[in-house]
Amino acid sequence: MQEVVDSNFDALYPQIENAVNNANFITIDAEFSGIYSEEHLKHSLFDSLNDRYKTLKKNIQQFTIVQFGIATFHHVPSENVYKTECFNFYLFPKSIPLKNRKISWQVTSLNFLCKHNFDFNKFLNDGICYLNEPDEKLLKDYLTQGDLANILEHLSFEEEVELNEYKNQLSEWMARSEQTTLKLPVINPVLQYILHKDLRNNYNIWTISDTKSMSFLKTIPDTQEYVSKQENNLEEILLNSFMRFSKIFKLLSSSKKFIVGHNVLLDLMFIHQQFYKPLPDSYTEFKNNIHTLFPKIYDTKFLSFKLRNLYKTEVNWKQNSLNILYEYFTTTGRVLSFNSPNIVLNEECSNQKSYHSAGWDAYFAGCIFVKMAHLFCVKKFGTGLEERIVTHSELMSSVKKFVNSINIARSNEMYMQFDGEDPIFSRPEWLHVKLNSPSIDIKELINKFSSFGTVDVMPFAHRCFLVAVTNHNRLV
Amino acid sequence: MQEVVDSNFDALYPQIENAVNNANFITIDAEFSGIYSEEHLKHSLFDSLNDRYKTLKKNIQQFTIVQFGIATFHHVPSENVYKTECFNFYLFPKSIPLKNRKISWQVTSLNFLCKHNFDFNKFLNDGICYLNEPDEKLLKDYLTQGDLANILEHLSFEEEVELNEYKNQLSEWMARSEQTTLKLPVINPVLQYILHKDLRNNYNIWTISDTKSMSFLKTIPDTQEYVSKQENNLEEILLNSFMRFSKIFKLLSSSKKFIVGHNVLLDLMFIHQQFYKPLPDSYTEFKNNIHTLFPKIYDTKFLSFKLRNLYKTEVNWKQNSLNILYEYFTTTGRVLSFNSPNIVLNEECSNQKSYHSAGWDAYFAGCIFVKMAHLFCVKKFGTGLEERIVTHSELMSSVKKFVNSINIARSNEMYMQFDGEDPIFSRPEWLHVKLNSPSIDIKELINKFSSFGTVDVMPFAHRCFLVAVTNHNRLV
Repeated sequence: MQEVVDSNFDALYPQIENAVNNANFITIDAEFSGIYSEEHLKHSLFDSLNDRYKTLKKNIQQFTIVQFGIATFHHVPSENVYKTECFNFYLFPKSIPLKNRKISWQVTSLNFLCKHNFDFNKFLNDGICYLNEPDEKLLKDYLTQGDLANILEHLSFEEEVELNEYKNQLSEWMARSEQTTLKLPVINPVLQYILHKDLRNNYNIWTISDTKSMSFLKTIPDTQEYVSKQENNLEEILLNSFMRFSKIFKLLSSSKKFIVGHNVLLDLMFIHQQFYKPLPDSYTEFKNNIHTLFPKIYDTKFLSFKLRNLYKTEVNWKQNSLNILYEYFTTTGRVLSFNSPNIVLNEECSNQKSYHSAGWDAYFAGCIFVKMAHLFCVKKFGTGLEERIVTHSELMSSVKKFVNSINIARSNEMYMQFDGEDPIFSRPEWLHVKLNSPSIDIKELINKFSSFGTVDVMPFAHRCFLVAVTNHNRLV
Repeated sequence: MQEVVDSNFDALYPQIENAVNNANFITIDAEFSGIYSEEHLKHSLFDSLNDRYKTLKKNIQQFTIVQFGIATFHHVPSENVYKTECFNFYLFPKSIPLKNRKISWQVTSLNFLCKHNFDFNKFLNDGICYLNEPDEKLLKDYLTQGDLANILEHLSFEEEVELNEYKNQLSEWMARSEQTTLKLPVINPVLQYILHKDLRNNYNIWTISDTKSMSFLKTIPDTQEYVSKQENNLEEILLNSFMRFSKIFKLLSSSKKFIVGHNVLLDLMFIHQQFYKPLPDSYTEFKNNIHTLFPKIYDTKFLSFKLRNLYKTEVNWKQNSLNILYEYFTTTGRVLSFNSPNIVLNEECSNQKSYHSAGWDAYFAGCIFVKMAHLFCVKKFGTGLEERIVTHSELMSSVKKFVNSINIARSNEMYMQFDGEDPIFSRPEWLHVKLNSPSIDIKELINKFSSFGTVDVMPFAHRCFLVAVTNHNRLV
C-alpha cells in the first residue's frame, strides 16, 4: 500500500491516475473525525429514509474525512487474478484566505484512530488539502480579483506573525552581500504566494518553492528553461496546492468506474460535503447528486445480506462487518469460493495489512466483493462453475441487480436505492401495545419482542407504546 | 521543565503540590485548540469591555486548552534568586459516559502548534483528563446511582466493539487452564471499570490496572496488603482518572498565591469554562468568579505598558509580546535591571527553552515579571537600589497598584479590573467625519489618522463615518 501525503502527492499522481483508468472496479473507504455531534444519537426503526438522511446530515456536518483509501482492481483473466493497487491518503484542510477552517473531533473517534495506529503527526504535518466546489470558487474569484494588499488583509494573526518573521530574515539577508541564497521553512502556500510575488516584483530576487520550504536567490539563474519553469502562473500553483485531493475526487468521478465500498452511505455523504458541495436539505437531491457523480456503486454490506439470504446456512459468518467477512473468506469461506479469482497486490507489501486504515479497508472491501460476486455467480451458473475460470463480465452480471442499493444501519431489509425510487419496506408493521399489568415495564416489553430482531419502542400515551421490530419471523 | 502526562501524573503530583505550596508566586500559560470560531473576528475600538467579553465567550466556547504551563517561583534572599520549577501539562478530554465530548481545532492553531513542535501523539495518547464542575457532578451522580447495566447502555459504539473484543479474549483465556494471567491493553478508564466490576464479581478473577493496561489473574494473590490496596473504591479510581488536571486547578485556586500570566485574559476565560463552569453570560459574574478563584493576578502585558510609560525612552522594546520582552531583558535590558534577582531552574534542563510551549511560556512570563517588578522598584526607591539586594516584599509592593488589572488586546489604555469597577477609558472621543471630496476613500481616511495609533472606522450614513483611534496625541 502506498501512503499518499502532501509531499509525495505530485510524484505519485501519475501512478494513481493510471491505476484508476485501468481498473475494472475501484473500492473506497474513509476514516472520519467523528459522526455524532448530538449527545445520544440513536437511529430508530421508526425513521423513514428521509428522516435518516436528515439526522445523519445534521450529525456529520462539522466532521471530516481524515483518511481516504482507494484500491483499484484490474482483472487478468489468464491468471484468474485481480491485480490491485492500494492508496492511503491523509487529508488535512489547509487554511484558506476568507475562510476560517476548523476540524472537529469526537473524542471517541480520536481514541479509535489512536488505537488503530493512525499517524497524527503525518496527518497534521503532511496531510493533503482539498476544497469543495463552493470553496474552490471562493478561492478562484479571490485570486482573480485580489491584489496582494487584499490577500495580506485576510491573513490570520498567526500568519501575519509568521510572515513578518520571514520578512525580517529576508531584509537582513538582502542587506548582507556575501550569501547569494537563503532557504526558509515556508510551508503555508498563501505565505509562499505572497513572498513569491513580493520578492520577484519588488526586489528582483528569484524565488523557488516546494511543499516544505522556499529558496531565495539574489541572481536569477541563467538557463531559460529554469526561469520559464518557475514563471508558471503563481495563482494556479497556489490553487493546485489546495486542490490536490479534489483532483483525486474528480478523477474518480470522471472515470465512471464501478465504485465499491462496505457500508458506504456515510462515506458517500462525507464525500459529497467535503469534495463536492454542502449536503442538500433534500434527500432526493442528495441521491441524484451521488448518482450523477458515481453512477454505479456497490455496497458489500448490502451484498452480504443478500448472499446470506441466498445461501442460508451454508454461509455462516457471525456478523457482516468488514473484518469478519474478510476473515471468513480467508478461512472457512475458502472452500465455498473455490476457484474464485485471487487478489494480488501489485507491489511488494512491507507494511502489515491492518483494519481501520482506510487504504487497507478499501482493499478488504474489494477482496470480499470479488468473493461474494463469485458466490452469486456460482448460484447463477450452477456448481460446474467451480471447474472453470469465471470471467469479469460474469462476475459483474451476477451482482448487477444490486447496483446502487446502499445499506443503512440498524436494518437488514431497508436500503436506499440511488438510481430510482427507494424500495417499499417489507418490515413488520408497528404494533400498538397497551400495558395493563402494572408489573410489566418497558424493559420486559423489549425482552418479549427481542426474538424478532432489533426492537424500538415509542411511548405515545400513558402505558401505551408503539413497537417496531426488524423481522416478521422469530429468529432462530 | 517537566513534561506532565497521564502516565506520570500520579508520580509527579507530590512534587507539583510541593512546588505550588512553597512558591512566592506562580505563573501560568495555556495553548489553545483555537480562539476564533467566526469567519472574521475583528475587535474594534468601538467595543465596550462587556461587548468584548461576550464576543470572546462566543468565539472560544467550542475550543479547549490543549497544553497548560505552570512555573513556580520561590525567592531565596541570600542568593538573590528565584528558584523555579516548571511543568508542562498535555490535556486531553477523555470520553465520559452520558457526554459526547468533542474537540474543535482551528486549522491555523493546529499549524501554529505544529510549527512550534507540539507533540500531538503525546497529547492524544497520554493527555491528562479534566472535568469542570458540572461534568464532575454528572459523572459522580452517575456512578453513585448507576448500576453496571446503566453504564453499559451509555457506551459509544466504538467502546462497545472494544469491550466485546476484550470479553472474547477473556472468555478464551478463562476456558484454557494453562495460563494464570492475561494482560490486555485496556486504556479507556470506563472499560477498565466495567471489566474490574464484571470479572471480580461474576467470575472470581482478580484484576489490576494502570493507565495503559489491565492484568487478569485466575488466583487472587495471597498477601493481604496487596488485596486491600487493589480493593479501593473503583468508583473513586474512575472519577480520579477523569479529574487529574481538575486537581491541579483546585490546587492552584486553593493556594491563593499570586498568579502571573502574560496577556492572561483568554487563559482565564478558558480556565473558567474548562475546569470550573461554562462561562456565564454576565461579564461581571465572570470577573467575580475569577476573582474568587484567583484573588491576586498580575498581567505582565499590562505591566509592560505601565513600565514603558514610566521609563519612556530608557525602555525601548519594539513590541511587548512575551518573547520580545524576554529577549529584551536578557540582552539590552540587562544593564537597566542590574542586580535584579536571577532566575534559576531547580533542575538540570536538558530540553531547549522554546516559545509557545506552555511550560516555557509560563517560565518566561515569570522571568519578565521579576525584571519588570525590579524596574518599578528602582523608580520607587531610587537608583541606590542597584547597590543592594531587593527583598521579595519590596518587589511585590512596587507592582501592588497593578494587581488584578488585566490587559485587553488592541488597546494600550483600556484594561479590565478584576477586583472592582473597570476604569473609565481615557481614550479619545469618537470623531464624526463627513467625506465631502469624492476623491477621498476609507483607506485614505484611515491613513490620515494612523499617526494616532490604531484606527477603526464605522460607517453610519452615506459618506459619513465614526472614527476611533487609540491615542490623544500623534505618535512619534
